[in-house]
Amino acid sequence: MSASSPTYAFLGPQGTFTEAALLQVPDAGQATRVPASNVNAALDWVRDGSVHAAMVPIENSVEGGVTATLDAIAGGGELRIIREVLVPISFVLVARPGVRLADVRRVSTHGHAWAQCRLWMDANIPSAEYVPGPSTAASALGLLEEDCHYDAAICAPLVAREQPGLSVLAEDIGDNPDAVTRFILVSRPGVLPARTGADKTTLVVPLPEDRPGALMEILDQFASRGVNLSRIESRPTGQYLGDYFFSIDADGHVGDERMADALAGLHRISPATRFLGSYPRADLQAAPVEPHTADQAFQSARAWVAGILRPAGEPAENGSSASPKA
Amino acid sequence: MSASSPTYAFLGPQGTFTEAALLQVPDAGQATRVPASNVNAALDWVRDGSVHAAMVPIENSVEGGVTATLDAIAGGGELRIIREVLVPISFVLVARPGVRLADVRRVSTHGHAWAQCRLWMDANIPSAEYVPGPSTAASALGLLEEDCHYDAAICAPLVAREQPGLSVLAEDIGDNPDAVTRFILVSRPGVLPARTGADKTTLVVPLPEDRPGALMEILDQFASRGVNLSRIESRPTGQYLGDYFFSIDADGHVGDERMADALAGLHRISPATRFLGSYPRADLQAAPVEPHTADQAFQSARAWVAGILRPAGEPAENGSSASPKA
Amino acid sequence: MSASSPTYAFLGPQGTFTEAALLQVPDAGQATRVPASNVNAALDWVRDGSVHAAMVPIENSVEGGVTATLDAIAGGGELRIIREVLVPISFVLVARPGVRLADVRRVSTHGHAWAQCRLWMDANIPSAEYVPGPSTAASALGLLEEDCHYDAAICAPLVAREQPGLSVLAEDIGDNPDAVTRFILVSRPGVLPARTGADKTTLVVPLPEDRPGALMEILDQFASRGVNLSRIESRPTGQYLGDYFFSIDADGHVGDERMADALAGLHRISPATRFLGSYPRADLQAAPVEPHTADQAFQSARAWVAGILRPAGEPAENGSSASPKA
Amino acid sequence: MSASSPTYAFLGPQGTFTEAALLQVPDAGQATRVPASNVNAALDWVRDGSVHAAMVPIENSVEGGVTATLDAIAGGGELRIIREVLVPISFVLVARPGVRLADVRRVSTHGHAWAQCRLWMDANIPSAEYVPGPSTAASALGLLEEDCHYDAAICAPLVAREQPGLSVLAEDIGDNPDAVTRFILVSRPGVLPARTGADKTTLVVPLPEDRPGALMEILDQFASRGVNLSRIESRPTGQYLGDYFFSIDADGHVGDERMADALAGLHRISPATRFLGSYPRADLQAAPVEPHTADQAFQSARAWVAGILRPAGEPAENGSSASPKA
Repeated sequence: MSASSPTYAFLGPQGTFTEAALLQVPDAGQATRVPASNVNAALDWVRDGSVHAAMVPIENSVEGGVTATLDAIAGGGELRIIREVLVPISFVLVARPGVRLADVRRVSTHGHAWAQCRLWMDANIPSAEYVPGPSTAASALGLLEEDCHYDAAICAPLVAREQPGLSVLAEDIGDNPDAVTRFILVSRPGVLPARTGADKTTLVVPLPEDRPGALMEILDQFASRGVNLSRIESRPTGQYLGDYFFSIDADGHVGDERMADALAGLHRISPATRFLGSYPRADLQAAPVEPHTADQAFQSARAWVAGILRPAGEPAENGSSASPKA
Repeated sequence: MSASSPTYAFLGPQGTFTEAALLQVPDAGQATRVPASNVNAALDWVRDGSVHAAMVPIENSVEGGVTATLDAIAGGGELRIIREVLVPISFVLVARPGVRLADVRRVSTHGHAWAQCRLWMDANIPSAEYVPGPSTAASALGLLEEDCHYDAAICAPLVAREQPGLSVLAEDIGDNPDAVTRFILVSRPGVLPARTGADKTTLVVPLPEDRPGALMEILDQFASRGVNLSRIESRPTGQYLGDYFFSIDADGHVGDERMADALAGLHRISPATRFLGSYPRADLQAAPVEPHTADQAFQSARAWVAGILRPAGEPAENGSSASPKA
Repeated sequence: MSASSPTYAFLGPQGTFTEAALLQVPDAGQATRVPASNVNAALDWVRDGSVHAAMVPIENSVEGGVTATLDAIAGGGELRIIREVLVPISFVLVARPGVRLADVRRVSTHGHAWAQCRLWMDANIPSAEYVPGPSTAASALGLLEEDCHYDAAICAPLVAREQPGLSVLAEDIGDNPDAVTRFILVSRPGVLPARTGADKTTLVVPLPEDRPGALMEILDQFASRGVNLSRIESRPTGQYLGDYFFSIDADGHVGDERMADALAGLHRISPATRFLGSYPRADLQAAPVEPHTADQAFQSARAWVAGILRPAGEPAENGSSASPKA
Repeated sequence: MSASSPTYAFLGPQGTFTEAALLQVPDAGQATRVPASNVNAALDWVRDGSVHAAMVPIENSVEGGVTATLDAIAGGGELRIIREVLVPISFVLVARPGVRLADVRRVSTHGHAWAQCRLWMDANIPSAEYVPGPSTAASALGLLEEDCHYDAAICAPLVAREQPGLSVLAEDIGDNPDAVTRFILVSRPGVLPARTGADKTTLVVPLPEDRPGALMEILDQFASRGVNLSRIESRPTGQYLGDYFFSIDADGHVGDERMADALAGLHRISPATRFLGSYPRADLQAAPVEPHTADQAFQSARAWVAGILRPAGEPAENGSSASPKA
């Protein structure tokens, strides 16, 4: 990689919603963009330095990135989320030129996209058979191959526009017109985006199995410091039934005292807790902070305890604070 | 359906792990067994009375049933889980006779099965390309078709044994030798299996969005009555980002006072809470119950409150309710 | 006691703040009012039927009623609080006619009154010696006795006005001009004041010693049902160090579903919990109730659970209990 | 005060249970011992340097020290508890020589001692009238005065033994043969007794009025760090009805990481929280500590968070820890 021009991976192929997300990153239009066949591959390129960062779907994706991404960043070499991007989701039905809706017998797309267009399909071509595809774009491009065994594909408007060999049979066929997918830009550790006041922190917290009530203890680490959670999802570790980790998005930045304190509490309860990054929220919404959970309250509390522990007559040192910003 | 002979649906095709699970039900060997192409279809047959019950995977499945099942029973017409079955998971690699391991270029199976055999594949045929299939059995049976565009399939031992046209290239290729999948037998409401003392209750609890701390409140309904949770999974509702429901398995039967009381508390906090059934645990493990969460403690507490509310001089009625307004 | 004319006891002697509280009860002006020498005596008269009810101080009293009252109603035969009364507290310094402030060497009053006039005493007659008295009124009346060994007394304005043999040396000598004492009217069980919507419930909850976290469990019974506490005080049982009970005032009436449900939870955790009454608040302030803790939410939850437990095909009964075994 | 010989105050007069407690302090037998007429006076002598330390009763006292002590150390200049002492409580009834039990008409003692001998008095001299006294020893010594207006006194065995003018009418007249009173030795700040592994920390925590659930938040600061409470008592502040502080004894030393962390949390929630000392437990019982609340868990958690916040490439500094022992 050259220092002057970044290289980005994304969950491909070209034309997916994920590439649309990547194009929202300021310098990505001019950067080298490398499609990956799956989330694991994209993240492995980040880990081994082949690319600077990778864009992958994290929530409500049509490309199957959700659980794959959650699992891929929870294990393996450490990674950091440095940005999130929201993309409105809209589907089109495409076919080779000349094919009419009445001709469609078999439709291919990614399973998640299929699930999100069920009502339209039932209403318009109820007899159509579903053919699973590895991505929406791959299904669309497959129509251009010689021996394609399906007649139409559901995909993003982007791929339809860029491929002259495809004609659009129907637009906006998604069941939920307000559907949005959230994507994350992932890099190696070493970069911690600055606090903006409207940040988000993503964590992976394995559920300790050795004592009951552990989940409540985990949630209490946030609640007792006034940290709100915007997402919590359980994922099986795959080791044995009932073994979970939780993927959590919390409002705030690790540079906020309350978040740093909550993280310390989590590490104590579940030592394998992973920090996956603090980064600006896409919606720029700052969470309200009450006085007793503000930075000042934590700093004042720490100074008070330090004063109790200091031997009599010894003055407070400058810079002796345990502040996460020290 | 005739009354004398039950009809069961299962997530097909024939030969899947799900059919193996169904065969553990006492009368299923002689019953009519109908394969369904997906979990939704199987459950819809139960809802419309086409079958008596359906067997579908619920946890750690290789057939993709997990989230599909969680979502399918969480919505639509009400259903009841009446039994759970555990099946050890073991994979084989099959091909047409004459094909050797060295010849394998493309391998088909369900995505979850593929994920569970990654280590073996990387070690033995690292260059093999993955072809997504709708189920392990369908991928295996596809090999028998004329124009099959892959060379081998990963499936359950059952389908390999029953299909003379398939030969086994390798056995026990799963990465985790202790893998187990949990299946559930689902019927319409109206049947509540009797208490055995080692029971499990399954619930769907939407997360109320209107106040913070709702998840802790939900967990507290169980914890404060001494009810242990054996599984908790979040699922997006698909309505908008951040809208979740929780799928929960709790130790005990709704006929246990502590569980009935916890359910009342859940309904109050999240009125759309769904009861999906109380049924015997497959592992027959009874959860310990402390004196202050035993039936006797709840009954005694209710009688005490009723005594306070009863007008002076009025004797206690038999079977009188603890309702303050009754 | 005659049915037509009630008899009330109060913590005497005549002229105490407690009698002033009793005079706020509508029919007390015409009723027989019997002074008791201590709280235990007053409550024992209620228990044995000698009087209809007794007025005693419960919070921030100058007559020493606070802990004595808390302990006296927590044990012995069951009693019920049926009313609360608030009385503003104002102190005067009295002496025999002719005695000047400069002559005062020894001052008698109840210990709590003494504590509440410390600033004034230190500023005006700092050398005065304190002589403990059993009540403010008794100390004042003692001045009229022959061999009185002190020169002045601190008491309520009421007693000074009614005793011609006493002259007032100083008024409003209390340190806190906003001081208020709360009194309660106590009767035997059998009367439960009607719900007004602005009620208070008083409880005695022994702290179970057999498990840690019991106090949090107790508080959670209220918090989880949206019941606010307006007072919580610990009291040693006197059995051994570290053995406590809690005296609690909670907003609401046992006829409110949320309070009845909280009481059932408390009884389960601490079976010796005592109900001391539900009665209108003196300040008439109704506590806000959220939808999920309103009566309707509890009734709806109970009906839902009853529907789950009801055998198939059986209609809901009128007045049917939510008991899982009923 | 000379450095070579300490001076101790105690709640007098001589012969009280409090002096018996003071005599358990190793060097107190040879030290100057100054009786104080009340707890406030004793503590004010400590504050102004007149004495090195003061012994006062703190729990279940017969001398009225309990609430007076709790209130006196909660306000005013800061003080530190440096030791606790347990004394078994036993009462005797004394009179002037020649007086027989049948002659006793009026009995004086401290109100708490009177309360603890009620059963014996009711059984043996039920008609005896109670005369309040400022302390058990003062009531006993009063019998030796010329114009004493009572016939007998209840006091500690110590005072009876040391006063030749008193004869013992009855021994062991307390209702509870296992009664024990706890006393504390109080000094000025500047001395923090070393950790022994079986320590106790005493705190004063005002209840924040500005938000509901504050008491649960306070308790959670301890519970979430595995700190057990051995005593919790509410006290009115005297400012207005419903304004409280809590006097708390917690197992452990402020030098323990979990206690230091809990104190920081308390200060954040209730900034006027007071630290009254960490000192060895009289019973030498060490509280069990779970791995996730041990010092190591806190230190490891802090180091982990520090690593996240450290700019890339910057090494961890030696001594950069926020440890309470740093």
